Amino acid sequence: MAYASSVDSEVRRKCIKVFQEKFAKLIKNILEEKTPTLVIPKRTLSNTIYDEKRKMLLLGPELLRRSFLDINESKRFMQTILMAAIIYDALVNNEYPTIRDLYYRGKHTIRYIDHKGKVVEENTWDEQRESDAVIRDLEVFLGLLREELLILSKEKGKVVGNMRIRSGDDVIDLSKMGHGAYAIEPTPDLIEFLDVDAEFVLVVEKDAVFQQLHRYGFWKKYKAILITSAGQPDRATRRFVRRLSEELKLPIYILTDADPYGWYIYSVFKIGSITLSYESERLATPDAKFIGVAMTDIFGYKGKKPWLTPQEAKNFIIKAKEADIKRAKELLNYKWFQTKEWRREIEIFLDKKAKLEIEALASKGLRFLADVYIPRKIETGDWIS
Amino acid sequence: MAYASSVDSEVRRKCIKVFQEKFAKLIKNILEEKTPTLVIPKRTLSNTIYDEKRKMLLLGPELLRRSFLDINESKRFMQTILMAAIIYDALVNNEYPTIRDLYYRGKHTIRYIDHKGKVVEENTWDEQRESDAVIRDLEVFLGLLREELLILSKEKGKVVGNMRIRSGDDVIDLSKMGHGAYAIEPTPDLIEFLDVDAEFVLVVEKDAVFQQLHRYGFWKKYKAILITSAGQPDRATRRFVRRLSEELKLPIYILTDADPYGWYIYSVFKIGSITLSYESERLATPDAKFIGVAMTDIFGYKGKKPWLTPQEAKNFIIKAKEADIKRAKELLNYKWFQTKEWRREIEIFLDKKAKLEIEALASKGLRFLADVYIPRKIETGDWIS
Repeated sequence: MAYASSVDSEVRRKCIKVFQEKFAKLIKNILEEKTPTLVIPKRTLSNTIYDEKRKMLLLGPELLRRSFLDINESKRFMQTILMAAIIYDALVNNEYPTIRDLYYRGKHTIRYIDHKGKVVEENTWDEQRESDAVIRDLEVFLGLLREELLILSKEKGKVVGNMRIRSGDDVIDLSKMGHGAYAIEPTPDLIEFLDVDAEFVLVVEKDAVFQQLHRYGFWKKYKAILITSAGQPDRATRRFVRRLSEELKLPIYILTDADPYGWYIYSVFKIGSITLSYESERLATPDAKFIGVAMTDIFGYKGKKPWLTPQEAKNFIIKAKEADIKRAKELLNYKWFQTKEWRREIEIFLDKKAKLEIEALASKGLRFLADVYIPRKIETGDWIS
Repeated sequence: MAYASSVDSEVRRKCIKVFQEKFAKLIKNILEEKTPTLVIPKRTLSNTIYDEKRKMLLLGPELLRRSFLDINESKRFMQTILMAAIIYDALVNNEYPTIRDLYYRGKHTIRYIDHKGKVVEENTWDEQRESDAVIRDLEVFLGLLREELLILSKEKGKVVGNMRIRSGDDVIDLSKMGHGAYAIEPTPDLIEFLDVDAEFVLVVEKDAVFQQLHRYGFWKKYKAILITSAGQPDRATRRFVRRLSEELKLPIYILTDADPYGWYIYSVFKIGSITLSYESERLATPDAKFIGVAMTDIFGYKGKKPWLTPQEAKNFIIKAKEADIKRAKELLNYKWFQTKEWRREIEIFLDKKAKLEIEALASKGLRFLADVYIPRKIETGDWIS
């Protein structure tokens, strides 16, 4: 395996050690002929807490005990041990599994004789949903994200900017990507930040708008790190953005379409996903700011003038669909959307039933988007946080 | 605009010249008080020809005449001129539009007085479908793909390998991307190939499998250029692959899931899309080979042994859905799927009603996929072309 990076070899050694420590107690149980039991933080919604101070969704203190000799728990116990063994093997054997192939690796039929003497067949799991849930249990049990276990996944995020990083055994200059970009690795914790000469990070929801701003030289002109999540952000992009915020103390501005889908993208960057709160502690960026496109940019508000002429508004605005309106009302239930600014944003949307794409601003001229709208919004602090 | 690349300035100069030449005749028409008319190659299905020798879908010789003074054609004539003017302005003003913002740029309402003296309002276009069709007309009229006009788009393709390229004003070493990858630019004709030390190109449908093979060092070990299209390939990825085939004479192997969707991805790389045949001449790679996963890899065929044990086959194979079967039957209608090898492939599928993901092979061990399956298939010429 001289072809894989030395960074990964080091990761394997560390993870193997964590496995051995965490499962030592279980082995001790077994050797002492006690009931083998795993104690795992609960990933339920009731054990998910929104931490007002850190502005994050976090796992609460509740634990679950998964015991081999409890008939209700034994299948899940065995699934957990099976998956742990497969991931451990992959670490030892220099493999790089994905969650999809972990599902396949573990999928088989167990044949056994039940208490009535009948031969019974049972599948380890039937759907990836099941094996994924087991992987999540292991993540919280080990205190390691799956990326840290060298479990890979597809990855959409891209970055350019005046910054050098070390990834694997290479040093990469993110200001020398030509017209292309650097596709972020699925394991962004292994990236080392070397030199950074930037004043802020701009995350653009849409890849096409990223291409426009990149090609225009936006990041050079305004000393920015320019990132796209290419839609709903994946874990690696979120972790990469978080690290830029936390370690480099760079302001993070998120630019999305003016619609509930765009707001939700912002919310995933900032708060994390509700169903996977245990990730948030590592993936969320509480300081992320929503720079636009805001409803007040379209329609104005009190002292603020709209950025669109009435003619442009007529040509650019898209009528909201029923699903958009339903989604907007749902967002109002989330604590982090219950601030004055977000209520105003959502209320204007519900009143006007209108949405707008970033591309509509670019169509006023890329210069307008790059040299007027974004810089002016940053200068005047016209964002929602 | 000192922040944009010098390469793009050169492109603008060339495109502006093409516009001026191509529209000179129209201006002459007008000055001579003749009917302004555009003559454009027909993009209809009836004018789409499968060239058996070049193995490509191409536009036939039919032309359409779009005249300002023909009542049936005048709206489309004006749409074409409007879009040409917008694109020309974008070229002159150092803009980088996308097809989405070209739609917005042109969208407005024209008010005029009709022959009955009534004021009538008409929109230039209502949906992007309309403005996109106009852009396609201009592509064939100008003989330039939209990418060559610096119209940008989102772009999913990634590449790593022992190769240096020039993009914009930078030289990029695609063997020094660490754990990440190089995200291909939306205008791949502007890429200059510098040094290439590779024996073949492997295009993987799935980004996650690309990540696995990359991380494993597959491309280093086997001297490959490794590419992912991340699903259905976009135009830039197709053009990039075509250039590797045509200019560097590298064999191109396409690895997809064993299902009609995977076959179609292969077909888009190789032949192009039916509805956009005028692109094929530039984007299709007639020499592309389907390396797998083949139905004969799963089930064997005559002398060929299956790569899966019966137990693995049981665990890995997914039952085909009705939509898969319908799609497979449709593919049989395409001329390029009417070879002996493809008929066999599709017939096995229709008989077994079974499909398989690449990830299932990776779950036999990444070593199996990287060091056994792919190299053995290439060595023994076990592909479909």
